[in-house]
Amino acid sequence: MNDWIERSGKYTLWDRRSGFEISFAGMDFTADDLEALQDKFERASSEMIKLEAGAIKNPDEQRKVTHFSDRMIYPESSEFRDVEEFAAAVRNEGRFDAVVVNGIGGSALGPQLMQFAINGPYWNEMSADQRRNGLKIYFLDNTDSAGVADLLAVIDLKRTLHLVISKSGGTQETRNNMIAMENIYAGHGLKFADHAVAVTMKDSSLYKHAVESGFLKIFNMADSVGGRTSETAIVGHLPAALTGIDFKTFLAGACAMDEWTRSKDYPANPAMMLAAMWYIAGNGKGDRNMVIVPYSDRLVLLSRYLQQLVMESIGKELDLDGKIVHQGLSVFGNKGGTDAHAFIQQLNDGRDDFFATFIEVQQDAMKLPIDGNIAMGDYLHGFLEGLCAALRSKGRQIITIRIPELTVFELGQIIALYERTVAIYAEFININAFHQPGVQAYKLAAKAALTLRETVLNFLNEHPDFSGSADDLAARTGLTGQSVEIATLLDRAAVNGEYVCRSTDDCGKWIYAAK
Amino acid sequence: MNDWIERSGKYTLWDRRSGFEISFAGMDFTADDLEALQDKFERASSEMIKLEAGAIKNPDEQRKVTHFSDRMIYPESSEFRDVEEFAAAVRNEGRFDAVVVNGIGGSALGPQLMQFAINGPYWNEMSADQRRNGLKIYFLDNTDSAGVADLLAVIDLKRTLHLVISKSGGTQETRNNMIAMENIYAGHGLKFADHAVAVTMKDSSLYKHAVESGFLKIFNMADSVGGRTSETAIVGHLPAALTGIDFKTFLAGACAMDEWTRSKDYPANPAMMLAAMWYIAGNGKGDRNMVIVPYSDRLVLLSRYLQQLVMESIGKELDLDGKIVHQGLSVFGNKGGTDAHAFIQQLNDGRDDFFATFIEVQQDAMKLPIDGNIAMGDYLHGFLEGLCAALRSKGRQIITIRIPELTVFELGQIIALYERTVAIYAEFININAFHQPGVQAYKLAAKAALTLRETVLNFLNEHPDFSGSADDLAARTGLTGQSVEIATLLDRAAVNGEYVCRSTDDCGKWIYAAK
Repeated sequence: MNDWIERSGKYTLWDRRSGFEISFAGMDFTADDLEALQDKFERASSEMIKLEAGAIKNPDEQRKVTHFSDRMIYPESSEFRDVEEFAAAVRNEGRFDAVVVNGIGGSALGPQLMQFAINGPYWNEMSADQRRNGLKIYFLDNTDSAGVADLLAVIDLKRTLHLVISKSGGTQETRNNMIAMENIYAGHGLKFADHAVAVTMKDSSLYKHAVESGFLKIFNMADSVGGRTSETAIVGHLPAALTGIDFKTFLAGACAMDEWTRSKDYPANPAMMLAAMWYIAGNGKGDRNMVIVPYSDRLVLLSRYLQQLVMESIGKELDLDGKIVHQGLSVFGNKGGTDAHAFIQQLNDGRDDFFATFIEVQQDAMKLPIDGNIAMGDYLHGFLEGLCAALRSKGRQIITIRIPELTVFELGQIIALYERTVAIYAEFININAFHQPGVQAYKLAAKAALTLRETVLNFLNEHPDFSGSADDLAARTGLTGQSVEIATLLDRAAVNGEYVCRSTDDCGKWIYAAK
Repeated sequence: MNDWIERSGKYTLWDRRSGFEISFAGMDFTADDLEALQDKFERASSEMIKLEAGAIKNPDEQRKVTHFSDRMIYPESSEFRDVEEFAAAVRNEGRFDAVVVNGIGGSALGPQLMQFAINGPYWNEMSADQRRNGLKIYFLDNTDSAGVADLLAVIDLKRTLHLVISKSGGTQETRNNMIAMENIYAGHGLKFADHAVAVTMKDSSLYKHAVESGFLKIFNMADSVGGRTSETAIVGHLPAALTGIDFKTFLAGACAMDEWTRSKDYPANPAMMLAAMWYIAGNGKGDRNMVIVPYSDRLVLLSRYLQQLVMESIGKELDLDGKIVHQGLSVFGNKGGTDAHAFIQQLNDGRDDFFATFIEVQQDAMKLPIDGNIAMGDYLHGFLEGLCAALRSKGRQIITIRIPELTVFELGQIIALYERTVAIYAEFININAFHQPGVQAYKLAAKAALTLRETVLNFLNEHPDFSGSADDLAARTGLTGQSVEIATLLDRAAVNGEYVCRSTDDCGKWIYAAK
């Protein structure tokens, strides 16, 4: 018990100005473990200095990594003013009452987190007055026609603004949603470009398309800011500004955390300490899952955001020396106290293969008395404390973050803390945190699947009398070995009433007939 | 390649009537591995027969487990008609236009999944006509005052119905939300009971409270249906019926899957095979994370639902013989193709510590042509196929489920498949899948936290001149050893402007003064 108090005193860091507090006392490590990381701290610190000074820190892509440094100067830039002025004009003008953010991965998860955390879960159901003329906001963050159909059921095309966000300009999912929307607008006799804003790198295919089509506006994205770290740049700014969120204060929160996490007093640097915890808990290989449990309804998307930030950055096959390392660090979670009625049973009793990070918001949104002087917020606090105590008593590992309230400032602190921790941890394990080579393999394979489809459809077109199994079709098209994949696409076509009909033969096997 | 075709032929199961298909071909196992599980298959099968015949299968709680068998007879029961008639009356009468589901864990996750999957993400934004007079639906699934405040911003108290769902009737979070709402209604000169429906076991404290207060209606919950398997019972039914969802067809889907998964032809039984995959992939100890990726925007909550179902059921300290086993099976995921731009980088390149389950919905919600004859849905299919191919080429393990469309029927199939797989897998590893003892430890610790708070507040009340550190206060209250916990509650009080003020001393340590 005294050990607990001593450790809490020693391993709890807090920022007096903001009240941000993070405690590592519930993690399983010793002072010697930290001492052993001294070289890693030094190296990471010096690499972070290089990174912020503009070195190429994403060697595969020959790119600088500027999300930390850009946000220091962004609020005073003409680009920042441009976004604010555009958003203010849109909100004041009243032509649009909703914005659709068309982007995937890094172009969606940050804005989604921010909207839910700051504007709450029911923003779109609020009146324009309640929204202070902020636009309603929707996301097309996939390439699922159901997502488009659901959107069309509730938006007024004429009064909707569309942000098309793709850094490279070639993101297929985003392009698909854009083309679908262009067709839908045209089908209603409307011009999509009159409703469209592009956010992309200069001269990308999206940039050119936006210029040619006459989009309302084009905002530039920096080559040196990756998708998953773009929330403090234009990708986060534009949706925030359109919905009335004070982005400058968000950046101030991020920059305050950046300043703190640049400290060379490593035991007092929350990012260095957090990276050390990840490293020690997971043996430098991610041997433990990272469970993220904010005790806050509005932070329910944080785990999904961090899942991308951490796993896409850390999950790498090769280290910087080209050695095969198969690194990773799995992240999941939802929200507390809710999770105590879900997966926390396993954390309490089951596999000891995780460390949990709890986040408490100290200020109650409302005072709701329940029993005598115990209010709803006191219960939530009690549940958090109870869970921490229960887990600790079983030797489970926990980190606790406490923030006085949940505003854009604290959200900026949290995001910046995890961004820097990811960068530092990557230095500890000697990997490139800023590329995503695994996504390439999958993109190529997806292209191959579409080529296969083309071949099959061409064959069916030329052989309208074809009838047979997927094996037969594979043989006829010279695609033996791919009958499984052919079957999946024929089944989909049949279900959608396209190209083929299907029936089962005596053995229950599908027989497809061209139609 | 031929091996792949052969395995696909051998290890793909499908149901001719419904078109439900599940393939295990992408998992790393041999026919011998299955053969070695023969005894486990037999034992699980006979235990499932006992379970469905009404044996005590939750020995700790001396309870039967009836969610599989109840749903066979439920549609023809008077209880079923009662729910349908109540919901129809509410919808026709027009007095209410929204329903708040107040429940946590098993009382919320199923209805949330169902609503999102069947009524879509923007149900509450639709007009009453679009909703065919189905009520708008909200969830209070925590004990966070922010959740209540957000709700109050958009509901019309007079036109809102409240379901209070707690099997035991004593769930603290649910009770808190109920009390808060009662106070809020009273504050507006309204009587909460005129808006309230209880769903609980007969004679529970909630039951008694509902009777005494004069709730509109009380629905009974069966003792033998646990929260996390209650979606096919009244817990799922009432919210579904109030929003116009065809629950009978949902049950038909679940029962169709139940029938299929009772098969003693184990290699043809999808639940036996799925349990075998979990067992083989995780060495019977959950050594691999289960990653759930539905290629469907509307199924984005499935992973969260399965996270509870699987982890709360499987994550156990003791086996049925009382041996310490620390079992578990971690579940996470979001949706595809989106996840390919997030954590799939790690699955492709990083730690090989998972198996993925992909779910495809074959029917497109809309035909949205993109490039020539390639529609949006074809791209989604191509991305799924591409990801499967990329993962397979790297020796990663995958299961693929394909459903022709996403209606309540298929949702019933999916839920029933996983419910039975959990029960079977629990037999494989000899644990009780139907209790949650780990939640008790945490509840007790939470009570202790509230008792600590009471002691501290009483002291402050009696010593209005107190000023000192948390350590001082701990010493004064005889709670040495608990100064860390005292500090967390004092900090919260100070932030909320209650009981104490705080300032920092010369060393930057908090000093609290009673106020």
